[in-house]
Amino acid sequence: MTKDPVIILAEPQLGENIGATARAMLNFGLTELRIAAPRDGWPNPAAEPLSAGAFEAGVSVTTYDSVEAACADLGYLVAATARPRGMEKPVTNASGAVDLIAQQASSVGVMFGNEAQGLSNDHVALCDAIMTYPVNKAFASLNLSQAVIVFAHAWGEAAGQEGRFEGAQAGVSDVASREALFGMFEHFEYELERAGYFHPPDKTPLMTRNLRNAFIRGQWTTQEVRTFRGAVKALAIGRGKARIKRDD
Amino acid sequence: MTKDPVIILAEPQLGENIGATARAMLNFGLTELRIAAPRDGWPNPAAEPLSAGAFEAGVSVTTYDSVEAACADLGYLVAATARPRGMEKPVTNASGAVDLIAQQASSVGVMFGNEAQGLSNDHVALCDAIMTYPVNKAFASLNLSQAVIVFAHAWGEAAGQEGRFEGAQAGVSDVASREALFGMFEHFEYELERAGYFHPPDKTPLMTRNLRNAFIRGQWTTQEVRTFRGAVKALAIGRGKARIKRDD
Repeated sequence: MTKDPVIILAEPQLGENIGATARAMLNFGLTELRIAAPRDGWPNPAAEPLSAGAFEAGVSVTTYDSVEAACADLGYLVAATARPRGMEKPVTNASGAVDLIAQQASSVGVMFGNEAQGLSNDHVALCDAIMTYPVNKAFASLNLSQAVIVFAHAWGEAAGQEGRFEGAQAGVSDVASREALFGMFEHFEYELERAGYFHPPDKTPLMTRNLRNAFIRGQWTTQEVRTFRGAVKALAIGRGKARIKRDD
Repeated sequence: MTKDPVIILAEPQLGENIGATARAMLNFGLTELRIAAPRDGWPNPAAEPLSAGAFEAGVSVTTYDSVEAACADLGYLVAATARPRGMEKPVTNASGAVDLIAQQASSVGVMFGNEAQGLSNDHVALCDAIMTYPVNKAFASLNLSQAVIVFAHAWGEAAGQEGRFEGAQAGVSDVASREALFGMFEHFEYELERAGYFHPPDKTPLMTRNLRNAFIRGQWTTQEVRTFRGAVKALAIGRGKARIKRDD
């Protein structure tokens, strides 16, 4: 897999957003942050609280005098913008940008504009591709660190596709065998029968089927079948404090 | 098209994060925010600045006394957690959660835990599925609103794909509300308690959670809930030929 992309903030304003960006990056394993011409200078004490320790935990920050300088050594650049701009560049979404980046042999940067205006057309023009999110047109302005985490998450998703979700359960593990389920049904229905539940008797098949359907849909495990049979037994026989007694 | 999911914040702490969540939601067109037992009450003046006007622009907020109350009327629930929890529920990522939600015929909520602990196991147990992101294990804690925007973006991505959700709804129709399920659980657990089933007593929370998990997975309908409650009642009280009697 390609080297992790660098995140470039073009002329950011608030230290808070720089801190939150560092946190968002590290959440998905990105560690190189470049800040081009930050309005309030750097370091900025406002960044620390919102970073949640990301700077100490691995995010490196380098400052540059200009956007151009911040991306001088990179081989491929993606501009994050709210709209496609009508420039002749590939326009894609977050996962599409990840795909583009993954195809590069050179080092890659993803550039985000500042809080007030986003990226200027001149900054976008420096880039190879445009990444844009399907935002609500009536409320389109994302917070800067939110824009970064959407990309970082897409990167983490892709980077993790190999083995990252290993051991995650796609479904239920250890699903009970039909045999175990049938045993449970018969036990339950036997006790219901004894308790006089099936009434009128000619509705028994329908009631039984409905109950079985509901249980089967849950894909119960062997352990859950055991647990439920214990519950049925307890209710039917009674034990401990309730001391329900049968008189038959 | 499936109805947009509701976002539920379970016991959130900071007003700032509630405001940022509202902004993140509206960025991708989500408008229904529910807050369960917010630590600092609601309304909270700290929320406004970070909302960027999202409350005025379309995000409605409803507060609830408890997480259970906040999801009482919903038919399908997704828990956003940092780890799979080893519960027997489907575990998926953001876009997988979107796919699951798109298949539901009923109203859906996505639940996020608070800043300090995330969701408790009891809250996760209320849910049908678990959504987890491929976070950096060494720096796994996402800011609350960042977690919300990752999901909201995935929703926006999918919603923007022409016809993607049309005709979906492969799921169960007339899914019981959470309220109906809670009522069923309480009834069942009450009778089990009376029957002395929970033994030893310190295992009660675990046994209860396991049973609830198993039932929730089946997406029971209103009718099935009614049927099962009838069964529990019959077993507990006895009637008809078995004539089980309580002596308490």
